[in-house]
Formats: sequence, C-alpha cells, structure tokens
Amino acid sequence: MKAARFHAPGDIRIDDVPEPATRPGTVKVQVEWCGICGTDLHEYVDGPIFAPTAAAPHPLTGESVPITLGHEFAGVVAEVGEGVTAVRPGDRVAVEPYIVCGRCDACTIGRYNVCQSLGFVGLSGLGGGFSQFVVAEERWVHPLGELGTDVGALIEPLAVAYHAVRLSGAKPGHTALVFGAGPIGLVTTAALKAAGVEQVVVVEPADVRKAKAPVAGADHVLDPTTTDVTAEVRELTKGRGADVSFECAGIDAVLKSAIGSTRAGGTVVNVAIWGHEAKVAMNDLVFREVNILGSLAYADDHPATIRMVAEGKVDPFQFITGRIELDDIVAKGFDELIHNKEENVKILVRP
Amino acid sequence: MKAARFHAPGDIRIDDVPEPATRPGTVKVQVEWCGICGTDLHEYVDGPIFAPTAAAPHPLTGESVPITLGHEFAGVVAEVGEGVTAVRPGDRVAVEPYIVCGRCDACTIGRYNVCQSLGFVGLSGLGGGFSQFVVAEERWVHPLGELGTDVGALIEPLAVAYHAVRLSGAKPGHTALVFGAGPIGLVTTAALKAAGVEQVVVVEPADVRKAKAPVAGADHVLDPTTTDVTAEVRELTKGRGADVSFECAGIDAVLKSAIGSTRAGGTVVNVAIWGHEAKVAMNDLVFREVNILGSLAYADDHPATIRMVAEGKVDPFQFITGRIELDDIVAKGFDELIHNKEENVKILVRP
Repeated sequence: MKAARFHAPGDIRIDDVPEPATRPGTVKVQVEWCGICGTDLHEYVDGPIFAPTAAAPHPLTGESVPITLGHEFAGVVAEVGEGVTAVRPGDRVAVEPYIVCGRCDACTIGRYNVCQSLGFVGLSGLGGGFSQFVVAEERWVHPLGELGTDVGALIEPLAVAYHAVRLSGAKPGHTALVFGAGPIGLVTTAALKAAGVEQVVVVEPADVRKAKAPVAGADHVLDPTTTDVTAEVRELTKGRGADVSFECAGIDAVLKSAIGSTRAGGTVVNVAIWGHEAKVAMNDLVFREVNILGSLAYADDHPATIRMVAEGKVDPFQFITGRIELDDIVAKGFDELIHNKEENVKILVRP
Repeated sequence: MKAARFHAPGDIRIDDVPEPATRPGTVKVQVEWCGICGTDLHEYVDGPIFAPTAAAPHPLTGESVPITLGHEFAGVVAEVGEGVTAVRPGDRVAVEPYIVCGRCDACTIGRYNVCQSLGFVGLSGLGGGFSQFVVAEERWVHPLGELGTDVGALIEPLAVAYHAVRLSGAKPGHTALVFGAGPIGLVTTAALKAAGVEQVVVVEPADVRKAKAPVAGADHVLDPTTTDVTAEVRELTKGRGADVSFECAGIDAVLKSAIGSTRAGGTVVNVAIWGHEAKVAMNDLVFREVNILGSLAYADDHPATIRMVAEGKVDPFQFITGRIELDDIVAKGFDELIHNKEENVKILVRP
C-alpha cells in the first residue's frame, strides 16, 4: 500500500509499504481522511524531532526513520481481530493514535498521555494516517456514529482542545483568554464555547487568523500589536482579569501577557510546545497566586469530543481549508502550509 | 515608644515614635516577641524593596520610609477598641500583619493575600513588630490560647508554610520534596509532616542546614552537589517522582530540578520570591502535565496554624536560634543573620 513517509528534513516520499495485518484485539481501519498537523510540518522542516532515529529507535515500537506520518485520522473498519467487540466492519471510527507502555506511573494513574515512553502512530511507528490502512488496538478505536470521516479526522485536534479546557477548570460563567488563533487556538476557542464559557477573548496579530476567530466562537479578538491586552482584558472583566488563559503560541512575551491577564488565583494552561526555554517572571505567579498547567494531547477525551461535535456544539467544517490526494501531500499539503500558513487551518489528505 | 525603623540600605535605627492609639474595631497589642524575616534582611541589605519610598508611598497607608520593620509578631492585648468582641485585654495573640483594600477582585473572592494593593504591617506602614505597640483591626488578631508569645511569633512563618502545603493538595500518602532548608524550607517540612505526609525529602547543599532538616521532620536529606536528585527521588518513590514539590530557593536550576523530580500530573509550589526572571523549560511541564502554583503568604490560615502548633504537631522551639533585645537588633539580629546565615533560623526580638 502507499504511505507518505518522512525520511529527512524536506524529504517526504510516497513509498510502497506492506499492508499491516490484523491481530487479536486489534482493528484494521481503512483510512479515509487524515489531517496535516503542525507537528508533521515541524518534522518535515526541522525533523527528525519526534520521529525516532536509527541511533535511538522508539522504545516501544523499535522503529526509526523512515516513518509513516499522519496521526489525525479517521476511516472505516475493514476487519476486526479476535475478541474485538466495540466495533464492526463498516463502522466509521476515529483513532486515538497512542503508543503507550501501560506500566509506568502515568499509565497506572490513567494519564497515559504523559506515559514515559509515549509515542504516536504516525510519528513513532506502527504506520500512520497518511497510508491506506492502520491497525490499532481496540481501546484506541472510537466509533463516530453518524459523523463522517472527514469530521472524524478533526476529532484528534478537537480532543487536544477538549482536554486543555477540561484541565483548565473553565466554567460557564468564566472569561477565557486564548493566545494565538492558529489551528490549536481556534479549536480551543470552539471547545471553550462548546463548554458554555461566557466570554472568550482571542489574542492574535495576523489579520487572516483574526478573521477566523469569531467564526470559531471568539466574543472579542484583540491585536497585541495595537492593544494593551492586559488592560483591555481587565476592561472586559470588570477589573478582574481572565479566569483561565491558554498559551497556544510558545512565545515568552505571550506567556508573560497570559500570566498578567489572568485573575488572582486563576489558571494559565500551556498548550504550546516550546522551541526554547522561556523566561518567566516567577514573581508574577507568586504575587497573584496564578498557576500554570502543562496540557498535552488527550486522555480519555475522544468519546466526549465526538459527542461534542455530534451534538452540534462545534461546527467542524470551518476548520477544513483543503482536501487533497495522498500523491499531492508534499506540494498541495506541506508546501502549501508553509507558504500559506495563516490562510490554512486543516488540510485533509485522502489516502 | 521605641521602634526599629528602616531608613536606607544598612541604616536601621532605634527611633522614638508616637505610641499608636486604639480606634473602634481595633486592638492594641503590646508586642512581646517579633522574629526577623528574610524579607526584613532583604530591606536592610538592598532596600527599599517592599518598603514604600517618598516617590511612591504605599497606596493604602500613604506612608514611606522611614518604616518600622517587623511582621512576625505576637504579644498581649493591651486595650480593645469599641465593638471588639474576639479578644480581651491580657489575651495572648498573634497578629496577621496585612494591609488590604477589601475591594479588589482578590479581596472579594477571599484571596486577600494577593490584594492588588497588598501591604504588610512592618513593611508598608501602620507600625511594626519591632516596636512596643501595634494597633490592628480585630480581624487580624488571632488568640493564641495557651501558647506563649515566643511561639506566637513563629505563627506567621508557619502560616506561610501551612498555606503553601494547603495549596499544594499534599495528602498523607504523598511524597513531598522541599528544595532549600532555610527558614521557609524548614517550616514547610514541619507543616508537611504535621499534615501527615508520608515521606518528606529535603534538598539542601549547606551542611548546617542539612542537619536541621531531620529535626523539622525530613525523612531524607539530599545534597544536590553530590546526588542526582531526580534519580534519587525516583528511587525513593518506586519510579514515580514526588507528588508535590516546594521551591523555596528562587534558583533556576532548583526550579528545573523540582519540575523534573515531580511525578506526572504533580504540583510544584513556588514559595520563593525571585530576584530575577527564571529560565523555564516549559516543555518539562507539558510532557508530564506538571503544574506550577505560586503561593504567597497566607489567607485564613492563622487559626489552623495555631491549632497545628497547639496540638503538638510541630515543635516550634527548634526554629528559635536567638533571643535579643530591641536595642541589639542590628548587631545581634541583622548583622548576625548576615554573617551566620546558615546557623540561624529565627532570631526573636523583644521590644
């Protein structure tokens, strides 16, 4: 079967690879749609980052580059292994693309998203969504019900947002602040509104992205290049500051602004993956007892995320800005995202 | 009456100041003992830091240097103003030394310790514990019951620890990690054991301080100059890491070690006040979903702290390393603490 594999920076190829075989307890999924994630783009430009190398194969899969990419995918069950009861051939499903050890402290307490040997299908081995078939353990396969597989491919990024919002403790009466209206900032905005949060304020400098924020549900959009964000947030919250803030940018000044715009005793959720060490004025945390939470991916969030979309609380179609074939993944996918970064949210690939 | 006042760096004088008068709703306390805090020392060496200057008087007191120091004090009620019912003349009391606005968001939600105009008696005006009398509003005056006023002077630093432990969510089955065995690290250690925390590990390089940690209740003391703290903590916790960690040092490498030694989903409480911006590897928070809380002073923690000491859960006398007269406060107090920093924990001053 065909698979888009990362070989080296700037080198993603459509290779012919063996079709994976169903084993007891696993489900073979025929992938219909798979989104290109910022992480995939990162591998393409600067990788290998998450992708394991020959010098350090992934501890659970033993695999190393070339690695099939694609972890935001959904498809149709083609075959089920012995003992599988949750799904049947023909079911539409989204796959939670984890590779975890099941034995470490984090796995034991149900926080398998921070497993000490964490890997992702589509980054660390076991194939990926930019290929025709993936075989996954039953526990990772989530029925989509009536939802289509294009929407199904968006469940993964929406689960990232659902998880961050859940950790934040955001409540209906709250004001939430989202820094960055890239893909993660937009899905976070949508998940906050779906959770009933009263006022969502998005902070974003780029015009094209600013225009997308209200569609995702932003009540206010602030441009940090022309607005004093902290002052404006205080204005919008009767002097309090935001109850929760989400750092989806990975920029020192943004983190500082997030901390400064959050109310006393409030929470800043760091969703961004950082490319450098941040400079943090710790006293800003201390003198207002703000707390910073790290949020990574999702854990037991897929069923609720699927429900959120199925109940119409989020319009997933707003996030789809392109649909392409696997053979076009580099030119119309990766290169398009590099050259028109701000215009795009999600480009879906059909393998 | 006599009062030790901060005038300028290195310039603390015993001045003659007017005795404060009791007003309705206030209590006049004759100070018996007042501890010298690291914050006082900071003012003496590098001040004014918290102490307001003529260019920027404190917004609530209108006062500026010279400022009477001393915020860790206890004494005997000398007189009560009209309407006061909680205490009577002759009662031994500890004073919660706050100056707050009562109107800001933090005050409204009961987190008056992070009031936006926060001040402290003994740093921001309204006198201080290094003088013979202080007049405080009834709400700040806490009966000591059978406890002596020397122990009463320790309630303030113990309340700092009690508050940090409360915010951390530390529970009896937990392992807690305390970085730094200075005064705050030691009282935090004692408060953790008082809360029933199973295993308290103190990390401290200085020999004299290392020796004090087990007295405060440390089950293990690690020297970070000769031990791989993160590896050793994993060893002590069956591979998990600490449930909660307390940063009482304000040092980048210590914060990094605290984050790295805390288990997935665990909490780092920042108790230190920082003299610089910290470099923080935010990804260390993200990839293990660790959270960092800022903890400042105390809020509604004095009654429980007094109870903790009264019930014998903490031996307060271990922390008293000197008792001096007000006239000796510079030579035998501040200068002694500078020259023999590690030998001392609390020097109590009798005004």
